[in-house]
Amino acid sequence: MHLVVIGGVAAGMSAASRARRLSRDLKITVLERSSVVSYGACGLPFWIGGTVQDPDSLIAHPPEFFERERDIRVRTNTAVREIAPARHRVLLESGEELAYDRLVIATGARAATPPIPGADLPHCFQFRTWEDAHLLEAFLLERQPRAAAVVGAGFVGLEMAEALLARGLRVSLFDQSNHFLGWRDEWLSAQIRDQLQRAGVALHLGEPVREIREGAVDAVPADVVVLAPGIRPNVELTAAAGIALGRSGAIAVNEFLETNISGIYAAGDCAETHHLLLNAPAWIPLGTTANKMGRVAGANAAGRRERFPGVLGTSILRVCGAAVAVTGLSEPAAREAGFRPVSAAIESRTRALYFGGEAVKVKLIADRASGKLLGGALVGKEGVEGRINVLATALTAGLRVEEFQFADLCYAPPYATVWDPLLIAAQQLLKEIG
Amino acid sequence: MHLVVIGGVAAGMSAASRARRLSRDLKITVLERSSVVSYGACGLPFWIGGTVQDPDSLIAHPPEFFERERDIRVRTNTAVREIAPARHRVLLESGEELAYDRLVIATGARAATPPIPGADLPHCFQFRTWEDAHLLEAFLLERQPRAAAVVGAGFVGLEMAEALLARGLRVSLFDQSNHFLGWRDEWLSAQIRDQLQRAGVALHLGEPVREIREGAVDAVPADVVVLAPGIRPNVELTAAAGIALGRSGAIAVNEFLETNISGIYAAGDCAETHHLLLNAPAWIPLGTTANKMGRVAGANAAGRRERFPGVLGTSILRVCGAAVAVTGLSEPAAREAGFRPVSAAIESRTRALYFGGEAVKVKLIADRASGKLLGGALVGKEGVEGRINVLATALTAGLRVEEFQFADLCYAPPYATVWDPLLIAAQQLLKEIG
Repeated sequence: MHLVVIGGVAAGMSAASRARRLSRDLKITVLERSSVVSYGACGLPFWIGGTVQDPDSLIAHPPEFFERERDIRVRTNTAVREIAPARHRVLLESGEELAYDRLVIATGARAATPPIPGADLPHCFQFRTWEDAHLLEAFLLERQPRAAAVVGAGFVGLEMAEALLARGLRVSLFDQSNHFLGWRDEWLSAQIRDQLQRAGVALHLGEPVREIREGAVDAVPADVVVLAPGIRPNVELTAAAGIALGRSGAIAVNEFLETNISGIYAAGDCAETHHLLLNAPAWIPLGTTANKMGRVAGANAAGRRERFPGVLGTSILRVCGAAVAVTGLSEPAAREAGFRPVSAAIESRTRALYFGGEAVKVKLIADRASGKLLGGALVGKEGVEGRINVLATALTAGLRVEEFQFADLCYAPPYATVWDPLLIAAQQLLKEIG
Repeated sequence: MHLVVIGGVAAGMSAASRARRLSRDLKITVLERSSVVSYGACGLPFWIGGTVQDPDSLIAHPPEFFERERDIRVRTNTAVREIAPARHRVLLESGEELAYDRLVIATGARAATPPIPGADLPHCFQFRTWEDAHLLEAFLLERQPRAAAVVGAGFVGLEMAEALLARGLRVSLFDQSNHFLGWRDEWLSAQIRDQLQRAGVALHLGEPVREIREGAVDAVPADVVVLAPGIRPNVELTAAAGIALGRSGAIAVNEFLETNISGIYAAGDCAETHHLLLNAPAWIPLGTTANKMGRVAGANAAGRRERFPGVLGTSILRVCGAAVAVTGLSEPAAREAGFRPVSAAIESRTRALYFGGEAVKVKLIADRASGKLLGGALVGKEGVEGRINVLATALTAGLRVEEFQFADLCYAPPYATVWDPLLIAAQQLLKEIG
């Protein structure tokens, strides 16, 4: 029995490792197009920003580790040309054919190419892969640019703005939207814009970039440009093989993460997953989801029958020193899904002032009809990750605001306030629901 | 309509303030035996320890504030001698009688008196009230003791051990039990003992103190002794008035926090509350519960009909620099309640090392029969408060381990790991459940 995994980063290596833990007999091969596997791609912006000193420290394990410790064959620099499901074969770029019994597709996503004139100039860099990061770092070291432009204000764009500021560059941030994180929420967007502006990022939001020239983006000086216009799933191989895509354009999978072709699984950024609140497929490519899906796909490829329940789109990122986190549905998304969203936003404090407590802002969203929590967002210098996870847990369980308002959360002066900001927001939200 | 509240700290002032927000017409009087109201009693150990510079900063509002801003009459230094429910009267120590229409009893708890010879010597101090703290502080300043003994290793005892260490004293901690926080859990107790020992606290656990003399507790030198043998509810007034007590000895209340006498409510440390997992009354006196109960009792005294759902006993405290937190049932408590507890304990990391991530230890407990989570404990230098709250939320919702194991918790290198320690523990626990 031969399990072949295409892609050796988060989902792929999780799948291979889990399959090995569940089965000693399986032959397992991972095919990775690039030269590295099992690295923390999410850490790359922090190498550019200087927090991570050595990028090699982001590599969890070298390929040899998997061979030696887990009996997993890892073939780097190995691109796949074609999947032939009828013959249970994978055809490599080299011409070699590989027979498989089970296949896990973890081809990830790639940076979209923005249709901006000049985006292919040599001072323009994408920022997605290990190689991308090394190309940018080399340019920054050699050319010592003074002014940077970041085009695209998604996760990568926001993290790169902070990283380039930390390196002492002047930073301008461009996005055709005024909003962030796909939330279309003016309250949240205003917090993020405020955070960026106070850190000194020049904002050019709400209109598309027209042109990149040497030394400038539109009329704004820029010696180096980071292109972060979003990502799209790597699905060319699978589409050609007759593996069905979902409406999002990513690979469609069932709750066992199996594609429309029996024995072929997909996991991570190349695949759709189930949205727990929309109760429908969604494409929300995130590192934590990729690891979880990889674990489940690997188990099922090894003969188990595990369900991946789905996601809420919980995410967090640092924006110039403040944590910004969301989970569940924004108000527009809730409305589009047929809910009647109602919200409340409050500002409170994480801990007593004498323990260095910080301001924290909370927005909660619920459905007026059912009283169920639908989503929330937090912004603050501390205590954001724990609270967004509390909210994610409440959403996982389908709690109503009324059930959540008296949640028995912990209190002691070094760690919390008597009334947690989440509960204050819940009480405010109950008033709004009426 | 006259609402009288007996007790002006957490539960009492919450009740009075909520009643006022809901009703402009109500006449509200708070009777407080001591000279201060509305102070953060939980902050007092941190004044002794030096984090809080000025104890007055722990007073949320002076009595005049409530009179002026909320039209609440606050009578300090006013002790109640008797409650006469048949006549709707409260008799004060001064002889004065006060008529009430609704009564909220928030008399709190007091330090138990340990039956130890010598516990009444002048170098022995209880540590419960504003006055207690001031007496101890004055002694520390005047006598400059070098060696302290803390008798009792509950919340107050553990916090006082840290506070006295921070002031430069040698500290010995005594308790007749080897365990902490009522958890009877060797895993948890070992973590706490280890933390105390590494900080330099001399432990004398597992046998009762026989005698306190001037300069020593048993054979251990001690120039000052803090007695923290636990607390008991202040129920003398209510018992004499025919207000029923529960099996714990605290005041019995229904879900509206009403006592057996219509129109008389009880809230905070003097009252029982509902335990969500035991589905039975329990006495778990904590500041956060007192505030919540006060809010509900005040609302109902003002004519509403709000339910207080109950508690899980979630608590956190700092033990010599590390956070220790519990929620739900320990294994012995779960067994006694008829569950079949099974547990898993793991050690993991809060964040990437390059972001200063810390070790965190997690124990999760579930019921083998139903697969439901029953409780958990965490120990670590960061990220404990957020995770115990996630767990408390999962317990509130009655989640099964299987439902929790893929919870969509947040991830980004500055804030979290891809697999949250809680999820790693959940996966381990699933294996134990089998």
